[in-house]
Parts: sequence; C-alpha cells; structure tokens
Amino acid sequence: MQSGQSQASADAALHSIIPAGGAGTRLWPLSRQGAPKFLLDLLGQGVSLLEATILRLAPISASVTIVTGPAHTEAVDGQIRRLKDAGLLSSDLDVSVVTEPSGRDSMPAIGLATALVAQKYGTDAIVGSFAADHSIGDEDAFRSVVLDAVLAARRGYITTIGIEPTSPSTAFGYIEATDQVVAPGAQLVSKFVEKPPRSVAEKYVASGYLWNAGMFVMGADTVLNHLGRLHPRMATTLGTLASLWGGVDAEVASQIDMAWNDLPRIAIDHALAEPVAEDGGVAVVAAPPAVAWSDVGDFAALADMRRDGALRRGTGAIPVLIDSDGSFVSGRSDRVIAVVGIERAVVVDCEDALLVTTREQAQRVKEVVDALHSRGNERFT
Amino acid sequence: MQSGQSQASADAALHSIIPAGGAGTRLWPLSRQGAPKFLLDLLGQGVSLLEATILRLAPISASVTIVTGPAHTEAVDGQIRRLKDAGLLSSDLDVSVVTEPSGRDSMPAIGLATALVAQKYGTDAIVGSFAADHSIGDEDAFRSVVLDAVLAARRGYITTIGIEPTSPSTAFGYIEATDQVVAPGAQLVSKFVEKPPRSVAEKYVASGYLWNAGMFVMGADTVLNHLGRLHPRMATTLGTLASLWGGVDAEVASQIDMAWNDLPRIAIDHALAEPVAEDGGVAVVAAPPAVAWSDVGDFAALADMRRDGALRRGTGAIPVLIDSDGSFVSGRSDRVIAVVGIERAVVVDCEDALLVTTREQAQRVKEVVDALHSRGNERFT
Repeated sequence: MQSGQSQASADAALHSIIPAGGAGTRLWPLSRQGAPKFLLDLLGQGVSLLEATILRLAPISASVTIVTGPAHTEAVDGQIRRLKDAGLLSSDLDVSVVTEPSGRDSMPAIGLATALVAQKYGTDAIVGSFAADHSIGDEDAFRSVVLDAVLAARRGYITTIGIEPTSPSTAFGYIEATDQVVAPGAQLVSKFVEKPPRSVAEKYVASGYLWNAGMFVMGADTVLNHLGRLHPRMATTLGTLASLWGGVDAEVASQIDMAWNDLPRIAIDHALAEPVAEDGGVAVVAAPPAVAWSDVGDFAALADMRRDGALRRGTGAIPVLIDSDGSFVSGRSDRVIAVVGIERAVVVDCEDALLVTTREQAQRVKEVVDALHSRGNERFT
Repeated sequence: MQSGQSQASADAALHSIIPAGGAGTRLWPLSRQGAPKFLLDLLGQGVSLLEATILRLAPISASVTIVTGPAHTEAVDGQIRRLKDAGLLSSDLDVSVVTEPSGRDSMPAIGLATALVAQKYGTDAIVGSFAADHSIGDEDAFRSVVLDAVLAARRGYITTIGIEPTSPSTAFGYIEATDQVVAPGAQLVSKFVEKPPRSVAEKYVASGYLWNAGMFVMGADTVLNHLGRLHPRMATTLGTLASLWGGVDAEVASQIDMAWNDLPRIAIDHALAEPVAEDGGVAVVAAPPAVAWSDVGDFAALADMRRDGALRRGTGAIPVLIDSDGSFVSGRSDRVIAVVGIERAVVVDCEDALLVTTREQAQRVKEVVDALHSRGNERFT
C-alpha cells in the first residue's frame, strides 16, 4: 500500500463495491474452488488480492461492500477482521459483506449492492465496482484516476476506467472513446468490443483503444434508472431484495434465495455498459501504463509482475534453472525445483498438485481444471 | 525374467563380474549418491537394475562377483539376500560382493574380480563383465549372444558384445569389426572409437559399426596376461591384493586400502580393449536390435522403454497431459501432475526435488547435480 488513509475524509466520495467471485482456474493449482484467487496472496505482498483491493480503495471510500458466495463469506469476513485488527483498515470504515445465494454474474451482484448503498446513503451516492482479484502497481495514480471517474459519474455517466494497452493483448475486451470530453479526464465512449484476435487487437492498439478492465464508477440513481429501463424485472426484484436484506426471518430468507436464483446470469458490461454506450451515456477515464494494472489473469501475467522472475511462495525452495531463461517457478520449502532447457517455463508446485507449462501456454491451464472435473477428480480443483 | 535357472548346469560357463558404481546423475532426482541407479527399480519391474542383471546372468553363470563401494555394500548384500530368500536366485549359486575401498573406474575393479575368480576357479575360467545398471528386453536372446562370446573368449579373444544401432546415437562409443570370423558369431574388431558427433555417428551406422556397450567376455588368463604386459604395476598390485583379500587383520586391511587407492583410475576400454584391438586380440559378437539393450542412460532412454509412455512410480499419481504428446511423467501417490503445451516433457517428482525438462534435453540433467554441488546443496544429490 503506497498511501495511508489520510485522504479518506476529503475524498470519501465513493461507495466501493467489490464482487468477489470466480475460481481463477487459469491460476490452478494455486487457485482452487475452496481458496479462489481473490483470497490468495499471489503477489507475496502479505495481503490477499481482495485485501489489497480493499486497502487500495479505502482512502477514497465512504463504504466498501463485498459481494461473495456462501462458501467464501467466512473467509472474507476473516480477512476484513484481520485488516482491522492489524490497524491497516480504519475500524470506522463501513465495510459490509453481502452473501449472494448463488453466482449470477456481475450485474445482479452490483445491482443489489447499489440498491443497498442507495437505501443507506441515498440515491445520489456514487458507487464504483472493482474486481476483487486484480492488481495495481501505482495506487496513488490509480486513486487519482478513480476520482476523475467520480466527477464524470456525478454528471450522470456510467464511467469506466480504461487501461492504456502495453501490448495487443487478446485476453481483454477493448473500449473505443470519442474525442468528446465530458468531464475532466473523461471522454465519451463510442463502443465496447469483445476480446479480439491478434491482428484486430493490433489495429485497436494502433487506433488508441483502451483495455476494458471491467471497472465502473456511476451514480446509484444512474444504475437504478438504467436498470429499470433496460431490465425492469431485475430492477424490481433487486429493489425488493434490498428492502428485505439483512432480515433474520427464515421464511423471508428462503424467499430471498428463490428470487435471487431466478435472476438472469448477466455481466454489467452486457446488461448496462454496452447498451448505455450506444445511447451516449458512458464515459471513460484512461489509466496510464504507470498505474500498472494487471488482472493477474494467468501465470504469464503473474510472472510478468514478479521482478525476480522466479520463486514466490515457499521461500525455502531451491530453484535450479539450467538454460531456462524467463522461467517462473513457484515451490514449497526445502525442495529443489530444477528446470533444464525449457525457456519461459512455468512450474507451480503445490502439496497435492503440480503444474508444468510455459508462459505462452499459460492461458490454457483452465483446461487442466476441466479435465480433472470430467475425470471425477474434482477434489484437486 | 524370461527364463528360469534350468539352463544353469549346462551353460554355467561364465563367471560374471558386475562393477556396481556410478551415481547415474543424468537420472537425478530418482538416482542419488545414496541410492544410485543400479539399486533402483527404475523400470517398475519389481527388481532393481542390479537385481535384474544378476537374475539375467545367473542361468549361465558359475559365479557372480559384484564389485561395489563401501557405501553400497550393505544395500547390495541386502538385494542378493532378498533374491535368494524369494527363491528367484538359487541359494547354491556362488554370489560374492567385493568392496572396493574407492572407485578407480572399471579396470581395477574387473582386474581384481578376475584375479579372485582365477584364484578360486583357475586361470582357464571365463569371466564376463557387465554393467549393473543396463537393461535388456529379450533375455534369452541376450544370453545366447553372451554364450557365443564365451566361445570366442575360449579362443583367447577379449570378446565384447556390440549392439546393432537403432539410431545414430551420440551417447555411445562405436566398434568397427572386420569381416574375419574368429568363432561362431564373432568377428575380429579393428578398432574402438569414442562418442562421435551426430554427422560422424550417421556415417558409423551406415558403415555397420556397432554400439560399444562396455560388456567384455574373456579368459581370466587372457585378462591377467594382457594386464601384466600393458600395466605391469597394476597387475602386480591386483595379484597381491587378491591373495590378501578377505583377510580380517586390520593391519592388512589398511595396507590393502592404501595399495588400492594408489591404483590408476582407468576404464577397461582404455586399459585393455583398445590396445589389444590394435594387436588383433579383440572380437565382437553383435547383439541384434531384438535383444533391446538399453543403458537406461537418461530420462529419454527411460521414457523410450516405457510402453505406456508415462507414469511409472507412485501408481496413485494422476497425470493430466494437455497437448503434451510424448511426455514422461514420474510422480508420487495421490498427486496431480499436469503438463500443458509442452511436447516430450519430462517431469520427475520426488519428495525433496522436482525435475522438469524435455526428452531432447535429458542428457543435461547432470548439470543440475553439478549446480547443486557448486551451491552447497549436496544433500539433494
């Protein structure tokens, strides 16, 4: 963490929403169903990716709402308690954990959290949704970008934070912005585009498109109005759920579960950002490369972020790399990991599982998880 | 074992000598200083390579002498006892273990064992020296080749067993034979040549050269005479040592050690076979490819020998190979080993060490052992 919480009172303009779901199967065997990516200290910085996200946003947040599944509520509660106990997070900050009965993708999760924020802080509150498992290099620069997005959000725009590309990645969707400035540092978005093939990605980068990092800052009223217009049934259900949320009546809890499980599975990108962009209602603030955003999407991304290029966990492990430049090795204590003649190898050694691949093939690691499922070896996933 | 010991009485023409040394560093981390290759059941056949060698030679042997270092005498004794207790090896067979005070390469070991055999069985005994850590596919065919070599040895030739090449390997020396037949199936050798570069190996194979597998069958008198002529000091020392061997006097034992440790380190190839070949005293019997000899020299060789192409030890291990054809995986129980997008990968997973390489790079594994030594991590070697 590069900044303390001194900015909090001045800049507490934001109600941060952190959907914490997703198994991170491309980071198997480190990331598991029971210990997903966001709960792990993948970067060896002493905090989990979720904890880092909370600490990063806390200085500019009036509240933080984490939306997670029943399987992870206890772990998330524990991490928040740990941050508060350690004095890393102000005990005054309103941090709440919302347990979604099942994963319905990001729109229901963000929609419910927004409705809860609106209920507590008013519909003029500005909410921002941020992934629980991404990483930021320069956190001050990042917060500054987020605060620019808050200004655009106050003007009624669904404001996304676009990342200036450092490569023609095929792992991300892209954002095309117009020249029209709608707030300081914010430009009108003309469209969102899906993950492109390499040749198309190169054109996008040459044309100044930004990576879509899935971060959205917006007025609670903006969200709820668009949702009511575009997805009226979901909006009604979320409104009802928010009003009943937190009750202890078992009958009500069961009705909440049923109503929630009936919601469509849909991402906020498709549900709101894309259709609203078509109507000129979306802005983007560009995050410069210095912000050093990463989705920590696979071991290639993880390897890029490790300055030492190698050993991370299990500090006692002994790497021996013979003619294996650019290799990434993650091992356990008092164990030799030798790589001979494989450049850019990725070796991840856990107690019950071992992964061997290359940085170039790292995106395909999820196929291992699929294979383990189809063979009845779920216990390793 | 493809044959029992029924042939023993008829064919017990041979006194087998098995030098059991060498760490097998190209098979690290399976092979270690404390548990070298010859003591391991690398092929998953229920016996170690040494045990398999003894069992292979027993049906045609009047005696078997294993020469090993002080660190391995107990283990070798134990394996012999195990074979006899299990009824795999006749309790009547004269099997002795000779502990060499230090490793002086193969000539002193074979020379001493030959002198001991001559002392016990007479100088007209035929001795044969065989590596303790090679593998044979068709053992009947192999014994038939060895018995042909015995006939040539009876005619005074140092008789080697040459392997008909299946590839232009650069891992072996080669033998050039003349057309002159000196005994049934045995041709006069014109020369031995060192491990060649690829292009030269291709010429050798095209010219009908054989692989030098380091197996020699010869009269005890032939060995001792040539040794006396070519290496008179060594011959004298070995004669003295043989006469004193087995004594229990501590003073004598100490003198034996000193005399032994003064012997030159030299292989039988250089000490005898090459100079004697120049004088027309070496013959070769060709072992056809069906014999399926292998020096089990590295993981590429080991992988070639495994029909299943994969998992060997730790039958409970779970391999997941995604787009990794020809990969060889050796793991431990109840552990997933996943390889993604690396063809012909070699993954060897032991309790305290992990090796990742490819079949093509497998010869370089010894560099890992060197690196561990130079870094003070001998405990893993």
